[in-house]
Amino acid sequence: MMHPRGAKEFRIAIVGAGAVGCYYGSRLAANGHDVHFLMRSDYAHVRDHGLRVKSRDGNFHLDNVNCYRTPAEIGPCDLVIVAIKATANGALKTLLPPLLKPGTMVLTLQNGLGNESFLSEHFGAERILGGLCFVCINRTAPGVIEHTAQGLISLGEYQRSPMTRTHQLQQMLVESGIPSQVVSDLALERWRKLVWNIPFNGLSIAAGGVDVSEILRDPGLLQLARGLMQEVIDLAARLECPIPADFIDENMERTCGMGRYQPSSLIDFLAGRAVEVEAIWGEPHRLAVANGLNCGRLEALYLLVKAVSERNCRS
Amino acid sequence: MMHPRGAKEFRIAIVGAGAVGCYYGSRLAANGHDVHFLMRSDYAHVRDHGLRVKSRDGNFHLDNVNCYRTPAEIGPCDLVIVAIKATANGALKTLLPPLLKPGTMVLTLQNGLGNESFLSEHFGAERILGGLCFVCINRTAPGVIEHTAQGLISLGEYQRSPMTRTHQLQQMLVESGIPSQVVSDLALERWRKLVWNIPFNGLSIAAGGVDVSEILRDPGLLQLARGLMQEVIDLAARLECPIPADFIDENMERTCGMGRYQPSSLIDFLAGRAVEVEAIWGEPHRLAVANGLNCGRLEALYLLVKAVSERNCRS
Repeated sequence: MMHPRGAKEFRIAIVGAGAVGCYYGSRLAANGHDVHFLMRSDYAHVRDHGLRVKSRDGNFHLDNVNCYRTPAEIGPCDLVIVAIKATANGALKTLLPPLLKPGTMVLTLQNGLGNESFLSEHFGAERILGGLCFVCINRTAPGVIEHTAQGLISLGEYQRSPMTRTHQLQQMLVESGIPSQVVSDLALERWRKLVWNIPFNGLSIAAGGVDVSEILRDPGLLQLARGLMQEVIDLAARLECPIPADFIDENMERTCGMGRYQPSSLIDFLAGRAVEVEAIWGEPHRLAVANGLNCGRLEALYLLVKAVSERNCRS
Repeated sequence: MMHPRGAKEFRIAIVGAGAVGCYYGSRLAANGHDVHFLMRSDYAHVRDHGLRVKSRDGNFHLDNVNCYRTPAEIGPCDLVIVAIKATANGALKTLLPPLLKPGTMVLTLQNGLGNESFLSEHFGAERILGGLCFVCINRTAPGVIEHTAQGLISLGEYQRSPMTRTHQLQQMLVESGIPSQVVSDLALERWRKLVWNIPFNGLSIAAGGVDVSEILRDPGLLQLARGLMQEVIDLAARLECPIPADFIDENMERTCGMGRYQPSSLIDFLAGRAVEVEAIWGEPHRLAVANGLNCGRLEALYLLVKAVSERNCRS
């Protein structure tokens, strides 16, 4: 399946040219892969000026980026990387079909829960892979991506164990300068990531726009963050994704090292953009209700973040 | 104990000259009672210009208000009405002793839980009465109180059934144009009021500064308000204060009639003043924890309101 470096047989489409799509797509293209970017607002700028990545691992610039306004211009690919906001998933129903052929893999790098199942429902479960990105990146101007920390993608198959293709994809990522690991249970990894995202992304918005250091410094918010983590761990356990209790302490320690980090949802919120409320809080909350679990902290946080972010977008 | 109208034998002190203290104190004084106001920021203005009440029941003005800077100038009274913010309760330990003599009644008109027990602990349980105010009033300028709706005081004894003095006080209030009723179980009435105050005062702040109509209009906030009410009812039941489940619907209907009402905590918050976080949310939350009840929505709301209102005061 894989191709020698620089070959053009393996065609990759990037759907969603925000920070995540541009950053990972640029690394793949810089390594000689045949990458095609579906773009909206940045289309003309990137067509004329290329993509610039400012990275702590070294800056680079891509001239002559393959960028497009419609998926029909790209045509069928071997790999489609989905990196649009989960709030815009509805658009995938028309964006993806022109990119698909038998055997096309669809890898979602989106946040939260429900993205793989949405893609599976519309395009077939066998195509779907998921990747969890542990990375600090920001689109700071049209065609400009700033990469400040980390970069790992944890890669897994949707409701299946890893396959040969999973390991090949991982190798392709690693060869392109993207740290990557294959995970045996993608659902478990999503829950592990939610143990952090639910409290920290949520409280950063609900407490009025605070970074993670301010959450750690406020004894009440810290207590609430721990209570939320416990609810998420209890919910995950009910769904057969066991996470050990000391994962809470481990997360808190890791967070201490993040300094004044602003979670991605807070950055979206402060920029007046839609927040991925349903993927991060809504879907877990619905699973709690469906399984008869009383997750009151999660429910309160979900409904408050939803209310304030909707008001924020309207204003 | 009571005195004929206009007589001076029954000495009343008002501690805390915000909207509640000035409004009810003015009505008592206007009816000829011997009322003495302990004041801070409005002292000079009221000494020189009196108190003005703009009420939907008719405006009135009090000249020659008895106002003081220290309790020692007032001296022992028959009734002390406590109307300072619960956040300043610590000050009562020095403010109240000069006002007390054997038999002095102390009536707290403060919000939330813990005020009667605080007063009882420091000044003796036998003195203490509590009143729940159902009233929309605002101090709009120094010495100026605007009264826009309602006015009822529900009056009860602290951890006792009503006594002769309770009914006499009620009569004094009614004769002064203050609707009042005696309640047999003050603790139950406090919980009934919290069923409304906890969700509506809390969500109005936590959802980013919204009035009650905006909470009712947002399906998520409405769901959360109902969930919070249920937690408060469950907690009250555990503390032997039974409240029927249909009280939730009754409260929601009543709230529909309030229009764009801003709860008092939101008014404090928007003015940058301290919010009575512990009396309204903290004390109920501590009782839930002490009784092993999982009130996750209440905990989340408590800790969020605490965090945002502390940040708000600091800024």
